[in-house]
Amino acid sequence: MEREEYLAAIKPRMPEKRYIHTIGVMETAIALAKVFGENEKNAEIAAILHDIAKYADIAWMEKIVRDEKLDHRLIGWGSELLHGPVGAYIAEHEFGIVEEDILNAIRFHTTGRVGMSRLEKILFVADMIEPNRKFNGVERLRKKAQKNLDKAVSACVRHTLAFLIDTKQPIYPLSIDCYNDLMKREDSEG
Amino acid sequence: MEREEYLAAIKPRMPEKRYIHTIGVMETAIALAKVFGENEKNAEIAAILHDIAKYADIAWMEKIVRDEKLDHRLIGWGSELLHGPVGAYIAEHEFGIVEEDILNAIRFHTTGRVGMSRLEKILFVADMIEPNRKFNGVERLRKKAQKNLDKAVSACVRHTLAFLIDTKQPIYPLSIDCYNDLMKREDSEG
Repeated sequence: MEREEYLAAIKPRMPEKRYIHTIGVMETAIALAKVFGENEKNAEIAAILHDIAKYADIAWMEKIVRDEKLDHRLIGWGSELLHGPVGAYIAEHEFGIVEEDILNAIRFHTTGRVGMSRLEKILFVADMIEPNRKFNGVERLRKKAQKNLDKAVSACVRHTLAFLIDTKQPIYPLSIDCYNDLMKREDSEG
Repeated sequence: MEREEYLAAIKPRMPEKRYIHTIGVMETAIALAKVFGENEKNAEIAAILHDIAKYADIAWMEKIVRDEKLDHRLIGWGSELLHGPVGAYIAEHEFGIVEEDILNAIRFHTTGRVGMSRLEKILFVADMIEPNRKFNGVERLRKKAQKNLDKAVSACVRHTLAFLIDTKQPIYPLSIDCYNDLMKREDSEG
């Protein structure tokens, strides 16, 4: 499928604002793929499809989690946590994506995880720094992403966790595993 | 055992600064016990013994974790995480403390946990706000602790997590379970 076909397929499944965000993520992910030598087409597809399940019915998504034996801890966490893993499911079963790396990038784009691939890191960072994002500190993250992908992931994870705590929102255990792993690596690098 | 005996027993096992901190925690815990109707003697004992293992040998503490089948996730986290559970072990086996509530207060005073008792909450908060603690925001926590113990616990947990993220330190999974539980409760209270 070509870019325009993917875009036409996702557009009716989300509000205009989310579609504009998706375009921003796509452009940023492709740019990062260029910088860090990742497959640009994979970055494009992962980015276009990353929020495909964002507005899907929660009960339906929880059914997918149960039927497909996905991480049972996802149940009860709502759309914010479900839409990554279920998005990967849709990408695979509806769009026929077979590259596990693309599916994982979609699957873990919200939480991160221990041992992310380069493509996973690119989508994770692109989702946070795309041009339509406006929050305190986003410019610092954008600059970091031009220089060092791992440090950008680490800064994005820390920013997200700090934001969740500041706004009293729950933190998914996978995100803490990811955070702890990143801090251990940064520490061992000195 | 009387207070002076406990204090004499712990003094040689920690640096002067930690001993002064312990006295501060003891006074604060007793004061909070008065405010919130908790057994003051239990608060006193839990506070005096809470850091008893803080300077114990890490290999020895990890052996205790293995021999006593404590949470295996404690291995590798160093003294900061080990000294609570191992402190409870020392309190029980060396000081003959049998009240599970006192042991739990010592056990979970660093991480917190889901479903803390009133005594556990008191020690957790007292440890953070005792008079020798000096950090940005401690006054706000002290004021909160005079009014609402649950909100004080919640604010202390959030402060600690934010500090750990800010200083790039690892976060123990139990602390996130505790945080998530507190946020869920606060949310359901509106």
